[in-house]
Amino acid sequence: MSFNSKIKTIEWAENKSRMIDQRILPKEFKLVDINTLDGMYTAIKDMIVRGAPAIGIAGAHGIALGAIEISKTETNKENFLKKLEQKAQYLKSSRPTAVNLMWAVDKQIKLANETQGNIEDIVNALIQNGIKLENEDIEINKKMGDYGAEVVPKGAAILTHCNAGALATVGYGTALGVIRSAFAKDPTIKVYADETRPRQQGARLTTWELTQDGIPVTLITDGMCSYFMSKGMINMVVVGADRIAANGDTANKIGTYTVAISAKYHNVPFYIAAPLSTIDISIKSGKEIPIEERNHEEVTHINGDWICTKDVNIINPGFDVTPNELITGIITEKGILKPPFTDSIKNAFKKD
Amino acid sequence: MSFNSKIKTIEWAENKSRMIDQRILPKEFKLVDINTLDGMYTAIKDMIVRGAPAIGIAGAHGIALGAIEISKTETNKENFLKKLEQKAQYLKSSRPTAVNLMWAVDKQIKLANETQGNIEDIVNALIQNGIKLENEDIEINKKMGDYGAEVVPKGAAILTHCNAGALATVGYGTALGVIRSAFAKDPTIKVYADETRPRQQGARLTTWELTQDGIPVTLITDGMCSYFMSKGMINMVVVGADRIAANGDTANKIGTYTVAISAKYHNVPFYIAAPLSTIDISIKSGKEIPIEERNHEEVTHINGDWICTKDVNIINPGFDVTPNELITGIITEKGILKPPFTDSIKNAFKKD
Repeated sequence: MSFNSKIKTIEWAENKSRMIDQRILPKEFKLVDINTLDGMYTAIKDMIVRGAPAIGIAGAHGIALGAIEISKTETNKENFLKKLEQKAQYLKSSRPTAVNLMWAVDKQIKLANETQGNIEDIVNALIQNGIKLENEDIEINKKMGDYGAEVVPKGAAILTHCNAGALATVGYGTALGVIRSAFAKDPTIKVYADETRPRQQGARLTTWELTQDGIPVTLITDGMCSYFMSKGMINMVVVGADRIAANGDTANKIGTYTVAISAKYHNVPFYIAAPLSTIDISIKSGKEIPIEERNHEEVTHINGDWICTKDVNIINPGFDVTPNELITGIITEKGILKPPFTDSIKNAFKKD
Repeated sequence: MSFNSKIKTIEWAENKSRMIDQRILPKEFKLVDINTLDGMYTAIKDMIVRGAPAIGIAGAHGIALGAIEISKTETNKENFLKKLEQKAQYLKSSRPTAVNLMWAVDKQIKLANETQGNIEDIVNALIQNGIKLENEDIEINKKMGDYGAEVVPKGAAILTHCNAGALATVGYGTALGVIRSAFAKDPTIKVYADETRPRQQGARLTTWELTQDGIPVTLITDGMCSYFMSKGMINMVVVGADRIAANGDTANKIGTYTVAISAKYHNVPFYIAAPLSTIDISIKSGKEIPIEERNHEEVTHINGDWICTKDVNIINPGFDVTPNELITGIITEKGILKPPFTDSIKNAFKKD
């Protein structure tokens, strides 16, 4: 049973990629149109668009935009494909941790190479495929939501970290998709949202998007989760993922690992919600996932203002890796994968 | 071996209580003079002065200020004592969790009742005792620092949460006192400071005070501790306390419990540094410690600006309780208390 969200995070419109500017939410709601591949590189890097699945769609749109640009001056098909592939490498470097970007860009490049016909045919195929991936993303999210809703206890209070919502996808959400589907069945469930410093996606995005859809949400600071778990006020945790290794180790927004440890200590079930496109079966464990180091102002400044003394040292890893032993299940569009994850992940890909 | 800190957080000066205004650090360094008991109530409640031991001294000064005021209009000693006791109850209600406030105010009221002579003699005794407690606080901190320094490994990276520093005491610190004493012996140690949302005492105060004293400090967000522990980058944790029960359960700034769980998971030693005045032997376990619920703007606003959507629910507990099973040792002025804490705490009070 799925829920109708009001939010459309990214869509192909008027031959451009139209997206919600997530840097200025919740103060301002603004749509921006991206019309070049370089513009898409910046949109991803500056986090106008963020969230692994949404970045995947942005990547697919970016390749379509790149193809449109190149087709304006390049008439030789082989040269066209070569130039597109170079641009694809550049686009993939915008964010290193989220694997969906690599997945979607590679899918587009493969399609470009396999498409029969002329350059125009390739351009059209890439645009159509971008739109297809958009629709698939929502369908996949709804399937995940329905599988996930089955493990949400009646009246549960669910903790989530960062934003793995409509705003991290095309429009339904992974972790928040599970919450939307659960809420459609049981309107007594409620959500605790971690603020998620440094960039505060929980405070800025998750509270906004759940409030838009009428789902009750309580904002807490990142250190509070254990207190509420010890009081029995949190019954399960659901978070998204930026990349999952073949053994189930999961990279997600920094702070997720701390929540997972606390959930284990309190025997609170801890779920990952992510499409199969987030699983990178080419890597054995989380140790191989590159962790993006982000700029220091994310830690030292909030809303443009200093929050600490000026001559302090900063380290700002954007993600951490939660080891598989802390994960109760991985909610995917093919069902809920359970430990041992090496086997359940292998089986899920066989069915694919 | 103790370290000379430049910071004097609170002192009796010109018949007033002079303190650093901690609400505006690190942007501005300003001393304020408090000259009435009601003014002290507000200074404690609004956190011009904060940190359990510093609040204790503020309480002692507050009673001296109250005595000066009452002595201006009241000439009957019995009435004077009655009025002072009423004011004392009011002052104690300014912050419910930190037990040092109750401890210091009760000490002053006992002294007032036991002092021979006239009202003026009582007033003078209370002022002198306030000054004595100030000096004792620094002495106690230095003793704790020296005991604590013995368990700091060579070149250790030490994580701390909130501010249990010179700014939380008269001028040396409990957790940061241990760090100061360790640094005096081994200048290769370094500190990781948790930001400590919601009020960011780690970002605003700990980074400022350690930088003032030339001790290397890296600011991290509250969710990051587990990531750095998993990388072997944090070798021990030392935090302060607001109240310790007879079994060692420790109330401290919200988020401490989360750090303690993570430290346990990574086998990183987790120490509390607190004077015996922070131990409340009248309560058996942490379940009996009242947890202050603070105002919601602390969560929803930073530097006066909204950080989330406006119609979100908030719960803002100021403290959490770390159960004794997560604590490696409690560093006091009588040595390091080890588990089982019910016994070691009882013994420490016997020696007192």
